[in-house]
Amino acid sequence: QGCEDDAGTSATNSGVPKTSSTTFFGYFQPEYDSHFTDDKTSTFKFKRARFGVRGRVNRTFSYYAMIETSDFISSDGNVYLMDAFITYDKYEWAKVSVGSFKQPFGLEVNTPCHSLTTIDRAIVSDQLVSPQRDMGVMLLGGTSKTKFRYSLALMNGRGLGVADNNTKKDIIGRASYKLFDFMSIGGSFRYGYPNNNETDRTSYGAEIALTYNKFNVTSEYIYDEGDYNRAAGGGCGATPLELGAKRAGAYVMASYDINKQWQPVFKYEYFDQDLNIKKIGYQEMMTLGVNYFFNDNTRLQINYQNKIETATTIDNDALLMQLQVKF
Amino acid sequence: QGCEDDAGTSATNSGVPKTSSTTFFGYFQPEYDSHFTDDKTSTFKFKRARFGVRGRVNRTFSYYAMIETSDFISSDGNVYLMDAFITYDKYEWAKVSVGSFKQPFGLEVNTPCHSLTTIDRAIVSDQLVSPQRDMGVMLLGGTSKTKFRYSLALMNGRGLGVADNNTKKDIIGRASYKLFDFMSIGGSFRYGYPNNNETDRTSYGAEIALTYNKFNVTSEYIYDEGDYNRAAGGGCGATPLELGAKRAGAYVMASYDINKQWQPVFKYEYFDQDLNIKKIGYQEMMTLGVNYFFNDNTRLQINYQNKIETATTIDNDALLMQLQVKF
Amino acid sequence: QGCEDDAGTSATNSGVPKTSSTTFFGYFQPEYDSHFTDDKTSTFKFKRARFGVRGRVNRTFSYYAMIETSDFISSDGNVYLMDAFITYDKYEWAKVSVGSFKQPFGLEVNTPCHSLTTIDRAIVSDQLVSPQRDMGVMLLGGTSKTKFRYSLALMNGRGLGVADNNTKKDIIGRASYKLFDFMSIGGSFRYGYPNNNETDRTSYGAEIALTYNKFNVTSEYIYDEGDYNRAAGGGCGATPLELGAKRAGAYVMASYDINKQWQPVFKYEYFDQDLNIKKIGYQEMMTLGVNYFFNDNTRLQINYQNKIETATTIDNDALLMQLQVKF
Repeated sequence: QGCEDDAGTSATNSGVPKTSSTTFFGYFQPEYDSHFTDDKTSTFKFKRARFGVRGRVNRTFSYYAMIETSDFISSDGNVYLMDAFITYDKYEWAKVSVGSFKQPFGLEVNTPCHSLTTIDRAIVSDQLVSPQRDMGVMLLGGTSKTKFRYSLALMNGRGLGVADNNTKKDIIGRASYKLFDFMSIGGSFRYGYPNNNETDRTSYGAEIALTYNKFNVTSEYIYDEGDYNRAAGGGCGATPLELGAKRAGAYVMASYDINKQWQPVFKYEYFDQDLNIKKIGYQEMMTLGVNYFFNDNTRLQINYQNKIETATTIDNDALLMQLQVKF
Repeated sequence: QGCEDDAGTSATNSGVPKTSSTTFFGYFQPEYDSHFTDDKTSTFKFKRARFGVRGRVNRTFSYYAMIETSDFISSDGNVYLMDAFITYDKYEWAKVSVGSFKQPFGLEVNTPCHSLTTIDRAIVSDQLVSPQRDMGVMLLGGTSKTKFRYSLALMNGRGLGVADNNTKKDIIGRASYKLFDFMSIGGSFRYGYPNNNETDRTSYGAEIALTYNKFNVTSEYIYDEGDYNRAAGGGCGATPLELGAKRAGAYVMASYDINKQWQPVFKYEYFDQDLNIKKIGYQEMMTLGVNYFFNDNTRLQINYQNKIETATTIDNDALLMQLQVKF
Repeated sequence: QGCEDDAGTSATNSGVPKTSSTTFFGYFQPEYDSHFTDDKTSTFKFKRARFGVRGRVNRTFSYYAMIETSDFISSDGNVYLMDAFITYDKYEWAKVSVGSFKQPFGLEVNTPCHSLTTIDRAIVSDQLVSPQRDMGVMLLGGTSKTKFRYSLALMNGRGLGVADNNTKKDIIGRASYKLFDFMSIGGSFRYGYPNNNETDRTSYGAEIALTYNKFNVTSEYIYDEGDYNRAAGGGCGATPLELGAKRAGAYVMASYDINKQWQPVFKYEYFDQDLNIKKIGYQEMMTLGVNYFFNDNTRLQINYQNKIETATTIDNDALLMQLQVKF
């Protein structure tokens, strides 16, 4: 849901489960980007700078709220409320959240933003799971510790900060299951009305996560068809692409935990913004990176992004360096 | 003044009165609205999402600050500073506050925003006590525990986030007195210059609050004449109406505390945006609602608003549902 | 760097040095300004209203983040992220900060904003050290307790909230040395590319601070030449002036600590926005003021600003009154 997954609302720091608590938390990610395009650009910036509060009201109600203060991710350059939800969590298999939160679609979108293995999410996650955050109500069950887990949400479908402009709500859902100790699989779907009550949109996602010793592989495929809302933008500040009637993409990401400090990562991905047109709009990208953990709460990420165009070759590789602190 | 009334600055949680303290607090209100207008609309949204800090510097100074992060109440869709005042409170009957705070006008406007019995304030409160928050200096005395209470403020009269455009300041005041254990009465006035140094504005308000066993009735009448500032908008995100030279409105609200959980409420109100024109701009509204308290800090409100037009009948009823969490 | 100088990251309140901590802090400054210009203006406003969090991750990493919520200082009237940096501070003489922070240029700009002896900074500080805050990386050594202190930063040169539009970064540095117990001297420089990769900007600053018994004198001279970025604005919300090819200014400020409460202050300053033009754009100002400390965290400042024009005399004196609370 939020940036903290289900670790959010239990006051585990003190070791004693409490029935009421408030925790102030946050993380920020200063970043230096070099883009090797024709007219090279380079800049210090922030990827994210988020501050929030979470807690329990009593045994059955918890809350979570977070603001994004980084100018670069918000489209209008200002602070905005991101996640803010109240959860009735008396029953582990039928929790209910109300407010604003992430769409329960896809493994990568629902990975906490401070725990991503590469600096950027895959293009397909940012382009097709959009808006990534929305307002609505969600039924969910299971935690990161259970074998099975599901989320089913009814949402505006318009994103944060605006009222819905149609009366039909979007239905979004995701379920995952740990088949073996080393393997989880999952699926997502979305059916909604992005712009009005007439034209609909349907999306599917499939995911797999493997962990074998210190070796981790995750892979995801997302297919999407129908109308879409250009104004909702790409996720995480990505520039939205023009989409055809049908579009799809996938990624596969492998990382290896050498030790507690070093974690190299490789990611291959493709995105096809219009399945009906062969030559244009198909892009591939390889990301080669390394994560260095100074400690549990401080991490340095270095990513080299190599973009491969099918039609014409242009210089557009990028080197990204991000330092992150959590508290 | 702020959203917390006078409970704001004493550190009562620990049981020990402290001379210096800081408390982080807040509340947020996800809401689902259905408007049964010709082209029906429905949306998940936030009514308010507020986070603040209050505390004591020492025995004689306290402070209070709060930001509004909900996109729907702020006119430009962004986070803004709402209340922020420093109070010299050595003498109970002559406290002085400096900064930004609510205009001390009217019972309903000065009811903390998380303690309103209906989801919306009365139309007259939102239309005539505008701007509801402003910057200035205030002399005040008494608390919610004393029989008598007063506030007298000198303010810009332009609202938050803008400098005053005239040199004449507004004077706003309110006093209330508990005549009997079951009955309080009060009055408010405002005299100011909304737009320039030439044209003035005068407003009066009268209020009464009755509590008999588990039965509560409050009623308020507000009269207002002269210039007004269209840009200041209605209170709490309400769309400002075109006002005539003289305008007035009132409401009466009755609620009954069945038990600690259930509280049904009925409210009748009218607002006349131009007392000189009989037929147009006079509106009545009835609100039928119920409040359910899961616990002290979690509340569900359901309100059905039935609007009655005198001139022509149009479909514009609304069903509002709000969940609130406080911490 | 931030508003808290180097007191920021050590948890000294508890008396016990901690290896991990989080402190929520802030200060706000309601102010009443009267400008005695031809069409007089007067307004209640905020000078600053800042809330932040600082802490240690472990023995070698600390963090600091702060938002500005006062509408009057931010150019677009909204809340924005100001300082947010992560510091690797294992070695006192080679600390490294990454993120957004103040340019290390000049004594007055680097004085914490709640510890300024006059309400406004000198014109030269606001006009020539602009943008006052920026994103980048900084090497720094020493603290307020050491004789020598230095900072050396590589920054975008474009200010907060925007990506750099050129690939050349700015170099900014400052060093100060306590020659005697009663006297410190220091110097600053900046070399950068404010708008593109072609036209540069060079700036120098010299500073001196004297403390003799209860008598304090500080003085600073800043010289600046080359290109500048009009959009970056003046520091602290000051209206940016049109600058010539070469410009300079200085101030000398004297204050006297009568006792713990009272501190009168006198400041003389001049600013020449174009050294090549004698008659126009040269301005002098005298500030006469008094600071009253109710306690360590609550301060009242009253300043009378007397502006002296060389070319023509116009009425533009101002009376500023500011109350500040810190927590």
